[in-house]
Amino acid sequence: MTIVTLTTDFGTRDPYVAEMKAVILGLHAAVRLVDVTHDVAAHDVVEAGLAIEAMASVCPQGTVHVAVVDPGVGGSRRGLVVATSGQLFVGPDNGLFTPVLARSGWQAFELRAAEYRRPAVSATFHGRDVFAPAAAHLTLGVAPSRFGPPVADPVRVAWPGTREVGGEVEGRVIHIDRFGNLITSIDSETVARLARGGVVTASIGRRRLPLVRTYGDLGAGGVGALVGSRGRLEVAVRQGSAAQRLSVRRGARVRLSRSTRTSRAPGRGRS
Amino acid sequence: MTIVTLTTDFGTRDPYVAEMKAVILGLHAAVRLVDVTHDVAAHDVVEAGLAIEAMASVCPQGTVHVAVVDPGVGGSRRGLVVATSGQLFVGPDNGLFTPVLARSGWQAFELRAAEYRRPAVSATFHGRDVFAPAAAHLTLGVAPSRFGPPVADPVRVAWPGTREVGGEVEGRVIHIDRFGNLITSIDSETVARLARGGVVTASIGRRRLPLVRTYGDLGAGGVGALVGSRGRLEVAVRQGSAAQRLSVRRGARVRLSRSTRTSRAPGRGRS
Amino acid sequence: MTIVTLTTDFGTRDPYVAEMKAVILGLHAAVRLVDVTHDVAAHDVVEAGLAIEAMASVCPQGTVHVAVVDPGVGGSRRGLVVATSGQLFVGPDNGLFTPVLARSGWQAFELRAAEYRRPAVSATFHGRDVFAPAAAHLTLGVAPSRFGPPVADPVRVAWPGTREVGGEVEGRVIHIDRFGNLITSIDSETVARLARGGVVTASIGRRRLPLVRTYGDLGAGGVGALVGSRGRLEVAVRQGSAAQRLSVRRGARVRLSRSTRTSRAPGRGRS
Repeated sequence: MTIVTLTTDFGTRDPYVAEMKAVILGLHAAVRLVDVTHDVAAHDVVEAGLAIEAMASVCPQGTVHVAVVDPGVGGSRRGLVVATSGQLFVGPDNGLFTPVLARSGWQAFELRAAEYRRPAVSATFHGRDVFAPAAAHLTLGVAPSRFGPPVADPVRVAWPGTREVGGEVEGRVIHIDRFGNLITSIDSETVARLARGGVVTASIGRRRLPLVRTYGDLGAGGVGALVGSRGRLEVAVRQGSAAQRLSVRRGARVRLSRSTRTSRAPGRGRS
Repeated sequence: MTIVTLTTDFGTRDPYVAEMKAVILGLHAAVRLVDVTHDVAAHDVVEAGLAIEAMASVCPQGTVHVAVVDPGVGGSRRGLVVATSGQLFVGPDNGLFTPVLARSGWQAFELRAAEYRRPAVSATFHGRDVFAPAAAHLTLGVAPSRFGPPVADPVRVAWPGTREVGGEVEGRVIHIDRFGNLITSIDSETVARLARGGVVTASIGRRRLPLVRTYGDLGAGGVGALVGSRGRLEVAVRQGSAAQRLSVRRGARVRLSRSTRTSRAPGRGRS
Repeated sequence: MTIVTLTTDFGTRDPYVAEMKAVILGLHAAVRLVDVTHDVAAHDVVEAGLAIEAMASVCPQGTVHVAVVDPGVGGSRRGLVVATSGQLFVGPDNGLFTPVLARSGWQAFELRAAEYRRPAVSATFHGRDVFAPAAAHLTLGVAPSRFGPPVADPVRVAWPGTREVGGEVEGRVIHIDRFGNLITSIDSETVARLARGGVVTASIGRRRLPLVRTYGDLGAGGVGALVGSRGRLEVAVRQGSAAQRLSVRRGARVRLSRSTRTSRAPGRGRS
């Protein structure tokens, strides 16, 4: 019983997601469907890519991830299946799979074979007519190479990364979650590497934040940085919203540096 | 493994939908549940009917569609099962199934048999106590006629249609989706019929819109009309919201007419 | 095919719920997952507890309820499995299961055994790393006592109840649902007991409300009290919102009393 995950910007008020599911189950009733999110900001390929990356790290071998954030539907953009060691990714070739393509050992193929599409493909809803049936056929054992010609140059988008300057690492807030936690582009390996050299402090704007292991290490309402469940540095307020407290938006710079002591910006009161 | 789809106005903050699912799975654990939407505007029978119509066109034979938008719960309205060739519909007799009843060959029965209800039927939640168990029993093979007496006159509500005047077709905006696309009551057959006679132009208010095949045929930010994934004329803005751009609400008139050229209303700038 | 229900305050925009589902299905693919709600107000243990209580009353034997509303994640709070006659509850030991613990015959155990957790337990996401795998292992037949030492004193929170003064019962509005119905702490047994003594009237503030059997007994737009689908007294407006009409919030007092006649507060017009 293979898992098929679904990530879209369709919302849940319209029947679009349900139509995709009906197509998948109509082709392979034993598939287990998991909604990742359908509330990706409209056309936000990076936000969707981050959700898919989180899912790929936790899903079992054989999982098929369908992602449809597709501003170019009906244009000339290709449809893709990307195969990595153990998992498969289906969606438009528009950069959605950038984090998957950053790993070694992927293969990509264009979704062209008519026998793995719905008989009538609409001009506006490839999620239902191309990607859903492709996912179902993959769970039925159709090899990725059967869908069409190999694609050597799938689209990648600029991906939020980090840069190092003088022993400091600078990253970005790449996502703000429901609780107001600020998830950054700085990964746990980078944090661990810096921490081997001494005490590490994070900062956003002029605000310096202690690096802690867990929310419990912060006082009630305290602000700090920690490695979160996605294996990334996160800035959090215990039982509160870091986004609100720090007035921070996606894209804000976050710096991580070694220091001999953890200090606070002056005049900001209890953190 | 039969599909049961669920369409309600219950929202997803309360456990009501989950209670229905628990009842269904408690009676038939192998059923595959698909949420169509639970965000139908409260008591909006037409919006729910449109979602069900979209699902019916894509679901496999044997699917049972449960719809609970039920302003009359606890009153004297009947519960219904409607059987068409291949699919089944369960819900209150209040017009929800108007599009299903517009086709030939349906049969309807009242949900009266106590053995297919929960032992204690609450006065306020027939979704859980009457409709969910009816759906489960249908998937178990109970014939629709076993639920109660035939219903020859199920309730139908006024359904947004089209009228033709002097070669022009006039319809209505029947739904605005998450992306701001305006879905109209004009179906693809009507569009195709008009298009056989020459170039076709759509208009809303004083705004004239080109009929295109796909979003990709519009320039970035361009406005146009096309046959969407539901087999209906839609008005769309490429990578934008037609509802916002045109300041249009549900119910607005849309006209489709033959013309020798595609023109624009003057003085409106870039479309 | 066991049901696992999921109740969280994670929202549905982030992939957190999906990560939990992937872990559960990765361990036991045949489990049937039911989302109760993920829109519990952040950290609101009582709201989550009420949803779980509603689900427990309708789910079949063997169901495992996972609830993750967890302000104390990463602190010293324990993880629990609570076993009652026939159903199992998994989540943090923070009062979420107060209504379950109010019944007789429960047993609770701490979630400590490393073999039933994910290999790497993050400091911030026990839903995925501790509670989800515990639920999956329970559905695979692992006995609750295998997870860790018995817990005799699980945390309970103040739970909205009722008190009786001079033949009157006073309760509280404990939840306002999507339709604006006011769900109270007064249960159906209490209502039935009072009703045996004569006509019963509910009141909120100075407003007196008739006790009816169903919405249909109220005129259009009428306000009244009735025993709702959760077996609790609810205050409702037919086809409208009682919360808006009466300007009532969660926590408001509701009184139920015997009276010889049903009257209305003066000067309020049609109710």
